[in-house]
Amino acid sequence: MTKTYKTAILGASGYTGAELVRLIHSHPVLEIVAMTADRKAGMSMGEVFPHLAHLPLPALTTLDEVEWKGVDLAFCAMPHAAAQAVIVRVPERVKVVDLSADFRLRDVATFEKWYGGKHLSPELQKIAVYGAPEFYREEMKTARLIAGTGCFAINALLPLVPLLESKVIDPDHIVIDSKTGITGAGRAPSERKLYSEITEGIDAYNVAKHRHTAEFDQELSKAAGRPVIVSFTPHLIPANRGILATIYVHGDALKVHETLAARYAGEPFVDVLPLGSDAPQTRHVRGSNLNRIAVFADRRPGRAIIVSVLDNLVKGASGQAIQCANIALGLPETTGLEAAPLFP
Amino acid sequence: MTKTYKTAILGASGYTGAELVRLIHSHPVLEIVAMTADRKAGMSMGEVFPHLAHLPLPALTTLDEVEWKGVDLAFCAMPHAAAQAVIVRVPERVKVVDLSADFRLRDVATFEKWYGGKHLSPELQKIAVYGAPEFYREEMKTARLIAGTGCFAINALLPLVPLLESKVIDPDHIVIDSKTGITGAGRAPSERKLYSEITEGIDAYNVAKHRHTAEFDQELSKAAGRPVIVSFTPHLIPANRGILATIYVHGDALKVHETLAARYAGEPFVDVLPLGSDAPQTRHVRGSNLNRIAVFADRRPGRAIIVSVLDNLVKGASGQAIQCANIALGLPETTGLEAAPLFP
Amino acid sequence: MTKTYKTAILGASGYTGAELVRLIHSHPVLEIVAMTADRKAGMSMGEVFPHLAHLPLPALTTLDEVEWKGVDLAFCAMPHAAAQAVIVRVPERVKVVDLSADFRLRDVATFEKWYGGKHLSPELQKIAVYGAPEFYREEMKTARLIAGTGCFAINALLPLVPLLESKVIDPDHIVIDSKTGITGAGRAPSERKLYSEITEGIDAYNVAKHRHTAEFDQELSKAAGRPVIVSFTPHLIPANRGILATIYVHGDALKVHETLAARYAGEPFVDVLPLGSDAPQTRHVRGSNLNRIAVFADRRPGRAIIVSVLDNLVKGASGQAIQCANIALGLPETTGLEAAPLFP
Amino acid sequence: MTKTYKTAILGASGYTGAELVRLIHSHPVLEIVAMTADRKAGMSMGEVFPHLAHLPLPALTTLDEVEWKGVDLAFCAMPHAAAQAVIVRVPERVKVVDLSADFRLRDVATFEKWYGGKHLSPELQKIAVYGAPEFYREEMKTARLIAGTGCFAINALLPLVPLLESKVIDPDHIVIDSKTGITGAGRAPSERKLYSEITEGIDAYNVAKHRHTAEFDQELSKAAGRPVIVSFTPHLIPANRGILATIYVHGDALKVHETLAARYAGEPFVDVLPLGSDAPQTRHVRGSNLNRIAVFADRRPGRAIIVSVLDNLVKGASGQAIQCANIALGLPETTGLEAAPLFP
Repeated sequence: MTKTYKTAILGASGYTGAELVRLIHSHPVLEIVAMTADRKAGMSMGEVFPHLAHLPLPALTTLDEVEWKGVDLAFCAMPHAAAQAVIVRVPERVKVVDLSADFRLRDVATFEKWYGGKHLSPELQKIAVYGAPEFYREEMKTARLIAGTGCFAINALLPLVPLLESKVIDPDHIVIDSKTGITGAGRAPSERKLYSEITEGIDAYNVAKHRHTAEFDQELSKAAGRPVIVSFTPHLIPANRGILATIYVHGDALKVHETLAARYAGEPFVDVLPLGSDAPQTRHVRGSNLNRIAVFADRRPGRAIIVSVLDNLVKGASGQAIQCANIALGLPETTGLEAAPLFP
Repeated sequence: MTKTYKTAILGASGYTGAELVRLIHSHPVLEIVAMTADRKAGMSMGEVFPHLAHLPLPALTTLDEVEWKGVDLAFCAMPHAAAQAVIVRVPERVKVVDLSADFRLRDVATFEKWYGGKHLSPELQKIAVYGAPEFYREEMKTARLIAGTGCFAINALLPLVPLLESKVIDPDHIVIDSKTGITGAGRAPSERKLYSEITEGIDAYNVAKHRHTAEFDQELSKAAGRPVIVSFTPHLIPANRGILATIYVHGDALKVHETLAARYAGEPFVDVLPLGSDAPQTRHVRGSNLNRIAVFADRRPGRAIIVSVLDNLVKGASGQAIQCANIALGLPETTGLEAAPLFP
Repeated sequence: MTKTYKTAILGASGYTGAELVRLIHSHPVLEIVAMTADRKAGMSMGEVFPHLAHLPLPALTTLDEVEWKGVDLAFCAMPHAAAQAVIVRVPERVKVVDLSADFRLRDVATFEKWYGGKHLSPELQKIAVYGAPEFYREEMKTARLIAGTGCFAINALLPLVPLLESKVIDPDHIVIDSKTGITGAGRAPSERKLYSEITEGIDAYNVAKHRHTAEFDQELSKAAGRPVIVSFTPHLIPANRGILATIYVHGDALKVHETLAARYAGEPFVDVLPLGSDAPQTRHVRGSNLNRIAVFADRRPGRAIIVSVLDNLVKGASGQAIQCANIALGLPETTGLEAAPLFP
Repeated sequence: MTKTYKTAILGASGYTGAELVRLIHSHPVLEIVAMTADRKAGMSMGEVFPHLAHLPLPALTTLDEVEWKGVDLAFCAMPHAAAQAVIVRVPERVKVVDLSADFRLRDVATFEKWYGGKHLSPELQKIAVYGAPEFYREEMKTARLIAGTGCFAINALLPLVPLLESKVIDPDHIVIDSKTGITGAGRAPSERKLYSEITEGIDAYNVAKHRHTAEFDQELSKAAGRPVIVSFTPHLIPANRGILATIYVHGDALKVHETLAARYAGEPFVDVLPLGSDAPQTRHVRGSNLNRIAVFADRRPGRAIIVSVLDNLVKGASGQAIQCANIALGLPETTGLEAAPLFP
């Protein structure tokens, strides 16, 4: 691998932006040539994120200041709504991986229902590939725009899609109880995210109305070949990174396990544990692009419990975005993503 | 209230023992006259628990050294199996509230299946009253032995029992996804409970085979008038105190809320939030004897999500034990239990 | 104690305000009759602080809406600068305990140097008593305005003042290395206080320029009878509550211990541990009004290390404010402050 | 770099052993061929450390089972006392980096005083090089045995040694106030290290008698050319990784900064921040081999405050051990150690 791909990060001042920088620093052929952050333009990345202060990085600029000549790839790590307005301004020959929710939903009306406001780039939404490499690898190879998945979504879709596709579970009885660390909510200050409001406790939020629900509906209905409406409750735990989903399904546990183990045998980042294993822990995938899945028989015959974990900033966001970019650029899919998890 | 009740704490060197001491310190008519801790006999409570070092307390002794004369009440805060062997030695006129699992299950065979080993005091098991004041208040008034509930159990039984009794939910579709702080696992050292293994993450454990399941079976089947087998998964979160259960049921949310609000209108320690409230947080009941419940309509008509929280060391253990003792002694039920939660 | 003292809390929507409510809820003769919070006027306290939602409390109002008739006592829990403007409007017959920095410094110029801006109530500053009961108990008995101490300040003044007064240590070699939980910084959102920026780490801030330094200068110089300039570095730890100061002095450890043990023998809230004890931990005084102090001989003869801890929201703020109010009202000083610490 | 160095890890079942595995997994020319863990021999590394379960690694064996043929390098990650007994059994041609305290002290009597017991390999102690690359780089190039530094020691030696060598500070007035995460205490279970005993608080321990003090004495006396006795207090904070030292010295801050900036200008892993910077945070070096240092003028002329941070498992142990090995093998010193810190 001798060629280097010049890379821009749009919206580099948030946690997913910083995580892109961390991961790309260990990537052999991606080179960061531009980083934008409108309100922090003119600052160095080290002022915004001291953990990156010792790295050689371009300064933060406005979007207008980006010199696009020679740029091969752009990651957009901006909030939803903002991403729409920015990506239309990227030259067409630049491949784009977007981490926002703006291009995940195929149906404009569904997007507007869950996220509010008029979609500014419906034509881009049409060509966007849903950023789950395990399900859309072929489409990614030629994609111009990849829409990174929601972190809750990918963590539960990885076990559920193959089970619905192979009709191993009942689409009418799916409960997804998810627990997430706080970084998924970003770095913008709010009372809700203060240390003093988060440590030493847990709570449920947006019960039955979290926006990632729309991604569940879209992808699970496609997998099942009929409408699927899951029960989904997100919870916030005192942790920076990690999502754990406990998924209750109607289906035979052996069959569930067999289906997942077969489906993911060749996948580099999905690790289906042997039956009888302890449940996977979020802290054991911290910092890595790994998704781990375990299957348990419930006490009641015909019911199973699935536990799925990942690091929301890596496999749930920036790591998966690089995995998508690797595919789109024709690189080995695991390039730059093989570091071991950081524990403890 | 002029009379003072002389109180012994058997097994005072664990977290529930220390919590009994903390709570009784603010109780106007309970007076601690003896505290046992076999392996730590001879030590002061302050050496074992420095946060109690400034309080006037008797030293820790062996069980044999306890002077039972004049003792009115004993709390037993020992592990299961140990409690059986100890409580038989308490003089019969002393009322006992046991916090272990030894006397919770009415059926000896069921106990022996879940906890292993032969039960040493089957005759005591027969007379024990299950320590949920909201369900067995009358029986407690004359009870000699009260078997404090499991912490996971009481947190989910409080919302579920009335719903099954009034047939508002389907007994065949109950999912209880519980998340607990670490103190429920006690103070005995193990790798599993080290700070470095617990902080910044979450995991599921004993999936579909946690021992509190037997309490669910017993009490929910009684409430439903037929066998009930729930799906139950406990999780460990980085927190000292607090249990949150997210409970998925088939039933109408309005009806569920109405039933619980009516059932608990007069209960001092069960707080059913108005429909439309944010979900309750474990940190907001920390240190108090409060159980808080909220009800949400799921997206799918006919399904509801219930969130229930409490402090596992208080309403889930030592606080509820004092509540039981208050009833058994004929005291106002809230005596000594009215301090506000400690937040943040 | 049959009389009840009607109490107003000005600025009840911050952490010290909430802590006043928590503590007063267990106080037998203080009764909250008014609570203000300008921006949140009209809300219930339970909406602002769900952990207090089940308590019977007046709604939050603006300052203008307070009905002062019958009010005996006011706590002011507002930020510095704001407190000045508010306390002048409180009727003169109402005793006031202020928790801000506005009235702690006797010298207006010093205040203006450290806190910036012109002092709006220099006449009130003159009559304010510094809110350290252990040093100004007599003055408090007749005070109209008591200026609660800084939390860092009181934690280090308690050991240092008697040592300087009795000339047991060298005023030219005092290093105060303090570590605090985050609640001292209040509840206003900022990036700095996010969970994700605080958990799992430590940092020093305002090195050699923290504002509480002015209180050290004032009180230690008074104790020594000559100017004292300490080295003081505050650190932020991942904890809600608690300050620990490690204080390095030149002086004989035995003499240091003897002086402190004698000085505080009769004090209800200062607990000088026996020589040879383990160092006190912040978590062991959590929620209580206790200050704990231990003394150690350094390896080098003639040098000693002192460790002092307290809960910044209680002995460092709201608890001590109630202690001051008890004195000012002629009540037993410990009234309402005797609950045991909450651990773990 | 085409040659591969076959590497053994002796004592792989502790945190520093696991961290060696994590780091070596990203090292291009070290290859793990043997891992020992006497009590866990026969288990896979994934059973002991699930975060490493997906990596291709040899199984854990006893020391006796190690096939030394072809092995170039051994890391010993065993506790002190155990390391002595094991390293004598390693073939002489194998280079050894030991992470225990066994070979750090040049004087056998000093070792026996602080660590107790008779030293079993005094002849090895004589040839060991103290494992601080910034001070003993030349000696390491030909060393057979390198004795990795204490984590508290290296964090404070990095700023202090150059200052004493150049006589910029007074050797008689050095206060080192250190705060550490819990992983430095290892993975062996104890009540002291339970989550419930560590979270949400801080405490000082081994005040004026921590064993790393002997390393301070040895290296600082050497640097000063005369005996130096520092004041040193370690504290435990709720964090897995990270040590922060706040160091109080008598000396001119400008001169202190200038000396350190000049001394470390060319060092890849010591980052002296510009004067006027915010103090460095432990969380910003997490997972990396970086040491960061900032210098502040105290309020009193002629006194300065230095803040130094590192990750105790990396620059304080396993990362620095690899840095030492790189030097001993003639590799570029930063090989395998350039990954960016993991934040948040």
